[in-house]
Amino acid sequence: MDKRPIGIFDSGVGGLTVVKAVMERLSNESIIYFGDTARVPYGSKSKETVTKFSAQIIRFLQTKDVKAIIIACNTVNSNCIEELRALFPGLPIEGVVEPGVRMALKATENNKIGIIGTEATVASGKYPELLKAERPELEVYDRACPLFVPLVEEGWAQHKITKEVIEEYLLPLASTGIDSLILGCTHYPMLTEQIGKVLGPSIKLINPATEAAFNIKRLLKSTDKQSDGEVATYKFYVSDHPSRMQKMAQIFLDYPVTQVEKVDIESY
Amino acid sequence: MDKRPIGIFDSGVGGLTVVKAVMERLSNESIIYFGDTARVPYGSKSKETVTKFSAQIIRFLQTKDVKAIIIACNTVNSNCIEELRALFPGLPIEGVVEPGVRMALKATENNKIGIIGTEATVASGKYPELLKAERPELEVYDRACPLFVPLVEEGWAQHKITKEVIEEYLLPLASTGIDSLILGCTHYPMLTEQIGKVLGPSIKLINPATEAAFNIKRLLKSTDKQSDGEVATYKFYVSDHPSRMQKMAQIFLDYPVTQVEKVDIESY
Repeated sequence: MDKRPIGIFDSGVGGLTVVKAVMERLSNESIIYFGDTARVPYGSKSKETVTKFSAQIIRFLQTKDVKAIIIACNTVNSNCIEELRALFPGLPIEGVVEPGVRMALKATENNKIGIIGTEATVASGKYPELLKAERPELEVYDRACPLFVPLVEEGWAQHKITKEVIEEYLLPLASTGIDSLILGCTHYPMLTEQIGKVLGPSIKLINPATEAAFNIKRLLKSTDKQSDGEVATYKFYVSDHPSRMQKMAQIFLDYPVTQVEKVDIESY
Repeated sequence: MDKRPIGIFDSGVGGLTVVKAVMERLSNESIIYFGDTARVPYGSKSKETVTKFSAQIIRFLQTKDVKAIIIACNTVNSNCIEELRALFPGLPIEGVVEPGVRMALKATENNKIGIIGTEATVASGKYPELLKAERPELEVYDRACPLFVPLVEEGWAQHKITKEVIEEYLLPLASTGIDSLILGCTHYPMLTEQIGKVLGPSIKLINPATEAAFNIKRLLKSTDKQSDGEVATYKFYVSDHPSRMQKMAQIFLDYPVTQVEKVDIESY
């Protein structure tokens, strides 16, 4: 039994889709969320910079006595999760990419898998690498979709322009014959409905956050670190003005986030 | 006569439109450009942080023996140009906001001026403040256009979807009756052609970089610091990986930028 919170972080607000998945599936667990809203986006930054920023965030989360970490940010997952595990031995650090890979391997029937993400996630080649390590005969097709994040953050998830952008990015990918598509960026689950309309029911959409939540549940159970039935608490921290996070939490969580605290993350 | 380079800096790659304006109008002048690509965007950071970052950049540019500085970044212009001038007495520090304001005042015939920019620039209210200080009877209308920067960086300046986004953002602004529109973000001049098509010839598009270039030309002439007719050189520095700057320089400058150097800007 361990009442300490789970730390979840992301380069910005997108990781709230992971918070939502954990809130729904581990309702007893308290959460400390950090969004690096002053330094977002990570997707266009180098591995060295992303590793440095992530280590600062984990040091901050350690001051909040977290029992485990979920890295919601695909860019951090793809670039430096192993480096971070080495930097913080003894602290369980889980991600979203490995769970997303497991889900896709279960989902595909024709061994053709698509991946979409930020430029950095796609350039890292992490998803294809992990998928093919498990099943070398897979055909993997990927595509960076840099406009999806700004469209979601503009509140345009349902906008007709967003549907056109989805068509532009994804119809060529669909023509490869994939039967499963990994939503390899935390913002993208907000576009599930529109992407589903464009691609149709024959392509399964994989949200890694779902499996990431089950993954942390298994981990806590196996190490006897689950929380008991007391009321879970959710705390939100950002590196920028809190107002934007409050607005985005409405879009992403559909949960009233009134208390958001600003942190001087560069001092960690 | 002074052969030393002009220093130009921005939070990222957008300031390349200012580089382009200076290259075209002051063809004898050498340029040192710094883009703070590891810490972009500035728009969401506090005044103290933006001032600190800018001072680090100016100290770096001083090591390259610059004779004057142009701050291409609208956020720095809006937040702390006076503080920076006070911190570096003797070094001419010019901006883009003040020149943009002068251009708009000359351009308007009906005293109705529009301003578009990032969320932070619009929220700062700096353009309306400076415009109304000069001419209190002005009607000023502004609009944040957060999707323009990612569309330009995606290389979609000419894309039909970009035209639709321009219509969505700017037709309501045009309906106010403005006859001049300030492109208050360094990326937006890349959209001049498409914006012009949407708004038609009755609305003049103001690119502050144009006047910023003339402004520095006048300054150098009046202080006898113009360069002579020798070949100008252009050097580019960034705080993150150079590859992205090279790609963006192709989009922004249409000039082959092969040498970009990474700088540890936090050490300045």
